[in-house]
Amino acid sequence: MAQNIYDNEGFFAQYSKLPRSVEGLSAAPEWPALRAMLPDLHGKRIIDLGCGFGRFCRWARENGAAEVRGIDVSEKMLERAESETRDSHITYVRTDMEHLELPAASFDVAYSSLAFHYLEDFGRLAKTVHQALTAGGQLVFSIEHPLYTAPSEPKFVTDAAGRAIWPLDGYLDQGPRRTDWLAKGVIKHHRTVATYFNSLANAGFTISHLDEWGPTPEHIAAHPDWADDHQRPPFLLMSARR
Amino acid sequence: MAQNIYDNEGFFAQYSKLPRSVEGLSAAPEWPALRAMLPDLHGKRIIDLGCGFGRFCRWARENGAAEVRGIDVSEKMLERAESETRDSHITYVRTDMEHLELPAASFDVAYSSLAFHYLEDFGRLAKTVHQALTAGGQLVFSIEHPLYTAPSEPKFVTDAAGRAIWPLDGYLDQGPRRTDWLAKGVIKHHRTVATYFNSLANAGFTISHLDEWGPTPEHIAAHPDWADDHQRPPFLLMSARR
Repeated sequence: MAQNIYDNEGFFAQYSKLPRSVEGLSAAPEWPALRAMLPDLHGKRIIDLGCGFGRFCRWARENGAAEVRGIDVSEKMLERAESETRDSHITYVRTDMEHLELPAASFDVAYSSLAFHYLEDFGRLAKTVHQALTAGGQLVFSIEHPLYTAPSEPKFVTDAAGRAIWPLDGYLDQGPRRTDWLAKGVIKHHRTVATYFNSLANAGFTISHLDEWGPTPEHIAAHPDWADDHQRPPFLLMSARR
Repeated sequence: MAQNIYDNEGFFAQYSKLPRSVEGLSAAPEWPALRAMLPDLHGKRIIDLGCGFGRFCRWARENGAAEVRGIDVSEKMLERAESETRDSHITYVRTDMEHLELPAASFDVAYSSLAFHYLEDFGRLAKTVHQALTAGGQLVFSIEHPLYTAPSEPKFVTDAAGRAIWPLDGYLDQGPRRTDWLAKGVIKHHRTVATYFNSLANAGFTISHLDEWGPTPEHIAAHPDWADDHQRPPFLLMSARR
């Protein structure tokens, strides 16, 4: 069983207070960049890997999707997703993504927002998703950027000149990182950009677009605490085609 | 005219003393990773973009290439390349890669080692190379890794705990960086991984493999000064297909 931090009471309470939890997709600064990678969803069958409160599932239906399946490992997240959804074309399934199995050629679009860095075995997932997509089907996802997950201690350090420096002290050391984000001891799995890329390519995907989300000057003016994200972008976005 | 630092006397003298200049390809630690991305060269027409002393050009012919063209902006590099080459199937042409023009479908493989980070306009070059390749033709290249070219001052800083930290203070600030590598004021152009990737994709390439070269424990045991490269890999390698 994979880590299920979202069913930790304290984590869930904190997570529920994040702007993106309260206000939805529009409060996620990277959402416009991720949305821009999506194909037209009209008539498509969609799977959302790590659907959380089901916000993207409902957005997909509002934007023409025929059927949407949301999967998540967290019972609490899915309870809330169910309670906020009145749509028989959206189904939620509790599944541990680490052991996910999907029927062949059953979806046109696979989507995932900020979930894959919790997975230990991304190569297995890439293969599972690839065979579950129809020919020409697309996988669009975001992850915490490897520059963000690399450090052994992920917090800025100050150099002799007083500059805040992101401590990139183990980019090539792939493996688990223990962080204290919203709760103590959350485990994320650091992988390099090349490992994400080659896992997809080995599964049979053609990777079509990359984005390293960072704030624009307008973003920074509105949210000065995002200025640091210009130093190491927090999110990596990828689009790949079967 | 692009910067032509290799014709600077001091730079050239220093460059000529580097292990890879004295001993050739085998002294470049990333060479086995780059070589592994190359297709079988038998009967192929090859172009080497930034050929320097012509070492790869000669290696390509020894490995079956039919015709090899080496281009470089540096007169001194090409003089030395010519003096070390006795092979009518290798031709050297002095060209500024920033304004390169190539006939359509005239090469099967394009190769470049550690040259593209000197270019201001990588998008133009990607298009030029794409149309110059035959269908199914391949571009294989290495660059200084964007993690390496990002900092405004590219040297390790020491944090309060005495750790050496790579100062990743402007990953998303793309543009020129002035460095003092072998000579004062060498200009390199920092681009993100996504910019390299998307420039190739926009030119029509399908990117098939990425590598972020870093030393193995055996490398580090043999060259302890390479241990830092585990923190930020010095080279990014890419393979793309027309």
